[in-house]
Amino acid sequence: MYIKKISVLGSTGSIGTQTLEVVRQNPEKLKITALSAGKNVELMEAQVREFRPAIAVMGDEESALDLKSRIKDLSDIKVLAGMDGMIEMAEDPDADIMVTAIVGMIGIRPTIAAIESGKDIALANKETLVCAGHIIMPLAKKKNVKILPVDSEHSAIFQSLQGSPADRIARIILTCSGGPFRGMSRDELASKTPEDALKHPNWNMGSKITIDSATLVNKGLEVMEASWLFGVGPERICVTIHPQSVLHSAIEYADGAVIGQMGTPDMKLPINYALFYPDRMPMKAEKLDLFKVGALTFEQPDTDTFRGLALALSAAKTGGTMPTVFNAANEEAVAAFLDHRIGFLDIYSEIEKAMSAHTVIKDPTVEEILETEKQAREIARSDR
Amino acid sequence: MYIKKISVLGSTGSIGTQTLEVVRQNPEKLKITALSAGKNVELMEAQVREFRPAIAVMGDEESALDLKSRIKDLSDIKVLAGMDGMIEMAEDPDADIMVTAIVGMIGIRPTIAAIESGKDIALANKETLVCAGHIIMPLAKKKNVKILPVDSEHSAIFQSLQGSPADRIARIILTCSGGPFRGMSRDELASKTPEDALKHPNWNMGSKITIDSATLVNKGLEVMEASWLFGVGPERICVTIHPQSVLHSAIEYADGAVIGQMGTPDMKLPINYALFYPDRMPMKAEKLDLFKVGALTFEQPDTDTFRGLALALSAAKTGGTMPTVFNAANEEAVAAFLDHRIGFLDIYSEIEKAMSAHTVIKDPTVEEILETEKQAREIARSDR
Repeated sequence: MYIKKISVLGSTGSIGTQTLEVVRQNPEKLKITALSAGKNVELMEAQVREFRPAIAVMGDEESALDLKSRIKDLSDIKVLAGMDGMIEMAEDPDADIMVTAIVGMIGIRPTIAAIESGKDIALANKETLVCAGHIIMPLAKKKNVKILPVDSEHSAIFQSLQGSPADRIARIILTCSGGPFRGMSRDELASKTPEDALKHPNWNMGSKITIDSATLVNKGLEVMEASWLFGVGPERICVTIHPQSVLHSAIEYADGAVIGQMGTPDMKLPINYALFYPDRMPMKAEKLDLFKVGALTFEQPDTDTFRGLALALSAAKTGGTMPTVFNAANEEAVAAFLDHRIGFLDIYSEIEKAMSAHTVIKDPTVEEILETEKQAREIARSDR
Repeated sequence: MYIKKISVLGSTGSIGTQTLEVVRQNPEKLKITALSAGKNVELMEAQVREFRPAIAVMGDEESALDLKSRIKDLSDIKVLAGMDGMIEMAEDPDADIMVTAIVGMIGIRPTIAAIESGKDIALANKETLVCAGHIIMPLAKKKNVKILPVDSEHSAIFQSLQGSPADRIARIILTCSGGPFRGMSRDELASKTPEDALKHPNWNMGSKITIDSATLVNKGLEVMEASWLFGVGPERICVTIHPQSVLHSAIEYADGAVIGQMGTPDMKLPINYALFYPDRMPMKAEKLDLFKVGALTFEQPDTDTFRGLALALSAAKTGGTMPTVFNAANEEAVAAFLDHRIGFLDIYSEIEKAMSAHTVIKDPTVEEILETEKQAREIARSDR
């Protein structure tokens, strides 16, 4: 059997380590050719020793030097650093597919480089599509590479699309747990602290994404991502609160049929699906037991209270550089909230303020996107 | 655009009339070439006048003569009668697909004739697969014709299979409303009358199938059907009580993903899907509103109380002529129950008695199947 060769951009984070777990379970079918990380040299060393990639990239020179000295005994492994290193890794012809498990705008250039060089993308880096979907999707089409979503919602939609004509999609049903503050009023939200938010019921996530889940900003970013991935306007993406997180998302077709994917909340499933697509490789995991889940319920989101979703839809409809401003302003606001410098509802007003102040550039280049982000961050910081 | 030509075996029944409704909604895409009915000459006349098939078949000579005299003005329509007429219709090379909307063993020979002559089958005639699956499925494969299921559960499974490898099916989740007596004890069931059963909540069905739904015999027949259609052993078909009937059935794959089809209870959806497969032609119908459905719940079936399912599984595992005996004994018992000649629980004991008395023929021919059915009915009748 042909061995699929994989590079992982962001191998020490949550998606990265779970990707390596899937590779570990399939030693005869998958092989790691390159890994990249930010500053976690210790974990990178362990990963390099286990998976023996040809290339290992660290986020900065210092970490790269540290790694190099730790793995002196493995002299055949090329150690690189920074954006240049990530792009060299993305262009390396040895890999068939690159998993973009990195967080932030930093993923855009390497993703473009990987597509340019003909690699399929297992996409977990939200910002790539949120900020540069108008560049990424046409490029992928031109280069005939697949963009395979790696998160539970978009993978569920992608799975529900297989075997049905894409031009028959009526609506996308994007499910959402509702986050830790589901059902609360604005007054209740006003007093919420980071500590209140960081006990999300269904998923083990980083603190930034946990706040995004509480504000519904994360779901707004997912609407933008789904819109690019599936070519469906945001107005036809129906966010549906589903606290049990069993239905991972669905498609309603023109004939009225709703096809959806259900399962346990295990990120290894979408990773496994993306790496073996269109096969469904057997996987060790807890199976969904419908007899145990109790009732599945569905509610309309309260976008008056959870304004993150409404602001995201507005940014999506405006397009151009507006989603970049939305995303950058949110990141700055969440950092300030986690630091106890602003309140929960201030996250919304900070985003709104940044969006109001922004003059949109239509169809921006990557340089314009990155410059927009930088400016949005600077304005957000100078205000406090 | 190419017009798909359709013959309908059993056009005056529930599935038949709904098939014609789908054809009516798509006059530029679908055309009726032949219709057959039992004795309902009046409705057949109306259908013939509306759809102008080349062939019209009535179940017996008398009805055929009646139809012939009513449509004297339409001299180009060939009127035929009985089994010979149905087989001639099935063999008519003009149709692309035959909808087998007829009820009972009478559908087996015309279905085989249609497959032999290379037509796809939109299959709503349960008995075809329950009793003769071992003949039908290999023949369809040999003749390279599609067997497209036309009922909500099997269509849902078929839809959930598109785009995924069939050899990765772990389990089929066959949903079941539970019928009108869901949750009742044996003591409660013992006193149930036909009148109690004939108020099934979700579906408008004939009285025989309503009783089969109450006994779970219908679900047992569906397990057998699914087993043949999808090549999955009955032990891997998990009947799941789902009173809301929103999830029409699902497949659990080897990777843990569960793909399912949801929708409103409208038989036109599976008919539309079978006729336009693999497209999803837009259809006028009530759309599923997840915000309105409330909670979706799932329970294990109580097969100790509702023994119809357990007996069906036993018949399926034995195979050969046993499913035919199960089906014939059930039909006789249901007729007796509807006639107030036996009680509700007696349906189970009648089926069990017939199965115990039967000497199985392995791999039976069509003649042996039909002879087995005749004998099983005679024994059931002579006992009362």
